[in-house]
Amino acid sequence: MTATPNMEAGHVNAISLAASDIIHSHLGLQARMEKPYISGSDVLSSDISVVMGINGSLEGQIICTMEASTACSIVGSMMGGMTITELDDMGWSAIQEFGNWVAGRAASELEKSNETVDITPPVINEGHSRFRIASKFLTFPLNSSAGSIKLHVAVAPVK
Amino acid sequence: MTATPNMEAGHVNAISLAASDIIHSHLGLQARMEKPYISGSDVLSSDISVVMGINGSLEGQIICTMEASTACSIVGSMMGGMTITELDDMGWSAIQEFGNWVAGRAASELEKSNETVDITPPVINEGHSRFRIASKFLTFPLNSSAGSIKLHVAVAPVK
Repeated sequence: MTATPNMEAGHVNAISLAASDIIHSHLGLQARMEKPYISGSDVLSSDISVVMGINGSLEGQIICTMEASTACSIVGSMMGGMTITELDDMGWSAIQEFGNWVAGRAASELEKSNETVDITPPVINEGHSRFRIASKFLTFPLNSSAGSIKLHVAVAPVK
Repeated sequence: MTATPNMEAGHVNAISLAASDIIHSHLGLQARMEKPYISGSDVLSSDISVVMGINGSLEGQIICTMEASTACSIVGSMMGGMTITELDDMGWSAIQEFGNWVAGRAASELEKSNETVDITPPVINEGHSRFRIASKFLTFPLNSSAGSIKLHVAVAPVK
């Protein structure tokens, strides 16, 4: 996988591995990561996004966005296969936890390339807004049996 | 000022001071901070929000939200008194920089109470979405001659 203007190839691979592994091993769902692409400096939020900030030797954001139905499927899988049609307080909490899993696993993978990263507690963004940053997002499209998930990632070494 | 379930009084004061000082000293605008209040675990984004994550001895988020007209007034003041009616790329960059000023100043104030905090690069959220977190936001309403700004803050010591 090639490096982007903002991200080293090793970091791209680390995040790609983290997300598909969490879906597969923690949730028991099929997951396939498509080729990441550069999205530019603004991306749309789907129904639900989990936004996590990164500080340390790298800094930036991981935004994990999906349709509400995908979030319900993920939460249902986290709760042992329940059918969830709407997110209540427990559901919101679960989808934040899912974000923590992905980000935590990404942090572990990044630390294998000698980076030290701290990840903020997640913020959920609910609604079709637009995210803008000063740099560029690299987007990881993940197809899973729970639905499609996009990871918009912008991490770069601290200047 | 009293402490909240999630924030110490000293931290509340530090953030309150930072925001009104930036508006006043950097932008030369009148600014008055109203009494902060607890907003619960979800808040609405106004037209534009600047979202910044915090890591270190404290962790969480600072979300700075305002109407588009307020953002245009702030950017206009940053550019030496220009009249701005719509945010272009330079405007988006300026409003991110404004967020950086507020967060950077908040970090300096927090460090006076022996906290060490790193702040992520800002993400702009454009559109009327809803932010949800696991803890509770403390909201700082700031009235300025550029318009009304709300700071939704959730910072707590790392567990």
